[in-house]
Amino acid sequence: VNIKDLDKVSILGLGLLGGSLGLAINRAAPGVKRVGYSHRPITRRKALRSGVIDIVCPTVEQAVRDAQLVILASPIGTFEQLFIDMAPHLPSGCVVTDVGSTKVLPTQWAQKHLPRQVHFLGSHPMAGSEQRGVDYARDDLFNLAPCILTPTAKTPKSVIDFLRQFWTLLQMRVTQLSPAQHDRILARISHLPHLLACALINCCDLNQTLLCGKGFLDTTRIASGPPGIWRDIVVSNADPIDEAIGRMIKELSRMQTAVRRKDDKTILKLLTAAQLKRNKLVTQKMNSKELPA
Amino acid sequence: VNIKDLDKVSILGLGLLGGSLGLAINRAAPGVKRVGYSHRPITRRKALRSGVIDIVCPTVEQAVRDAQLVILASPIGTFEQLFIDMAPHLPSGCVVTDVGSTKVLPTQWAQKHLPRQVHFLGSHPMAGSEQRGVDYARDDLFNLAPCILTPTAKTPKSVIDFLRQFWTLLQMRVTQLSPAQHDRILARISHLPHLLACALINCCDLNQTLLCGKGFLDTTRIASGPPGIWRDIVVSNADPIDEAIGRMIKELSRMQTAVRRKDDKTILKLLTAAQLKRNKLVTQKMNSKELPA
Repeated sequence: VNIKDLDKVSILGLGLLGGSLGLAINRAAPGVKRVGYSHRPITRRKALRSGVIDIVCPTVEQAVRDAQLVILASPIGTFEQLFIDMAPHLPSGCVVTDVGSTKVLPTQWAQKHLPRQVHFLGSHPMAGSEQRGVDYARDDLFNLAPCILTPTAKTPKSVIDFLRQFWTLLQMRVTQLSPAQHDRILARISHLPHLLACALINCCDLNQTLLCGKGFLDTTRIASGPPGIWRDIVVSNADPIDEAIGRMIKELSRMQTAVRRKDDKTILKLLTAAQLKRNKLVTQKMNSKELPA
Repeated sequence: VNIKDLDKVSILGLGLLGGSLGLAINRAAPGVKRVGYSHRPITRRKALRSGVIDIVCPTVEQAVRDAQLVILASPIGTFEQLFIDMAPHLPSGCVVTDVGSTKVLPTQWAQKHLPRQVHFLGSHPMAGSEQRGVDYARDDLFNLAPCILTPTAKTPKSVIDFLRQFWTLLQMRVTQLSPAQHDRILARISHLPHLLACALINCCDLNQTLLCGKGFLDTTRIASGPPGIWRDIVVSNADPIDEAIGRMIKELSRMQTAVRRKDDKTILKLLTAAQLKRNKLVTQKMNSKELPA
């Protein structure tokens, strides 16, 4: 498929990500027909009424019929069944991708269930928020954010090119990692931070947190994210997350030792290293326009 | 002192907090004369030029002469020497406070070094940012944020009332805790989150973090705070922070065990508890207008 020939996209799952995808496609390529599926009637009605899609289908079969590009935008725990349900109905040459936060398992499920003449390539647009549902869909959610493609050795170059072009059309900065690399890195920069935010909230007393400042609120923002979606992410990436939590506990133990000894030199060294590293990160995100200067 | 008779405030330290204090006082009580001290000539010039204070002094002695209210707004590591330097020059009946993030040690230092006829009462306005210096001073930094007063059994009620009125004038929500309670709670809701943000950044590779989304940036924002100021905070509150890190490591170990076992029920329970607790916190902060609705 050439991106210029794309005239139809099927979006399975119409929450924050699926809905925003519909809006972003409409903004970037108004000619492309957006077909949507959700298992909930109320979400289907809302999605149609708010214009995040053009056509809504009550079954996966209808939603993927004649599809050129199918995008899974539902919780990861639903993926395997979706692959099974769509497999008999996908047209030959069709490209299937997803926007899930882990990549090894979805790639394995796709290999297991999808027919040979269909191409799966995982995508991970690094966009979202702690909010949930089509009501929060925004046409600029993906703008200038990173998007990670996770091809395997078997992925045809034409499919990689196609999805690169697709996400670039939506203003994303596309990079590539293997599914395993992706999951290891994401365990550290996304899944671990989520669990940290949750653990921090969980080990504080609500009445005590009422005295908090903006720092605590920012540090814990992502803990307001939907638990079911995050449970799926965590379970589907258990080993790398286990390893990432282990690294974090080691790092915290180092800090604890320094604090206990009132070792001001080591404390300053750790704080300075963190400040420098984060400031570099922010500078680079500003240079790439991902963050406002 | 009655708040209505206040006509002069001495601010020692003219960074983000001292500067914002000068601006906020000018907005809330334009008649009050703001006297400022900084040990750096360039900060003294900047503070005067940008109008955060009315009069600048190159010595502590000059800055506190005839003071009704003295506010320490420099890093905690400078407090003991400031108390020693100001002690011989403070007028009788003068109230001394500070805006530092720990309270047990400053209260002890004040008891040790200040004369009997001077009243020290610690304050902790829960306002600030990861930015540093008088350039970032804002007249609304303190608006609607919590401010914790930390009286001891010996603090006269009139002094508590006076500082309550002062911070209320600057639109703050004043509460009271003992110095020890304050330090234990703040270790959990402020000092621990700071160290967590730093530890998270420190255990990630810069190149990998470039792929991160907004969640990681928010979770680590406070790690960009000034390391020297935070070193002082951490060293001056070592025992409660040691205990808070210990709690956090326990909470993380619980999560790690659940993740390793792919125990989806326990994972969901931990994530749901965190979401509910944070949402309650946000609702309460919205109700008190600390956060926009």
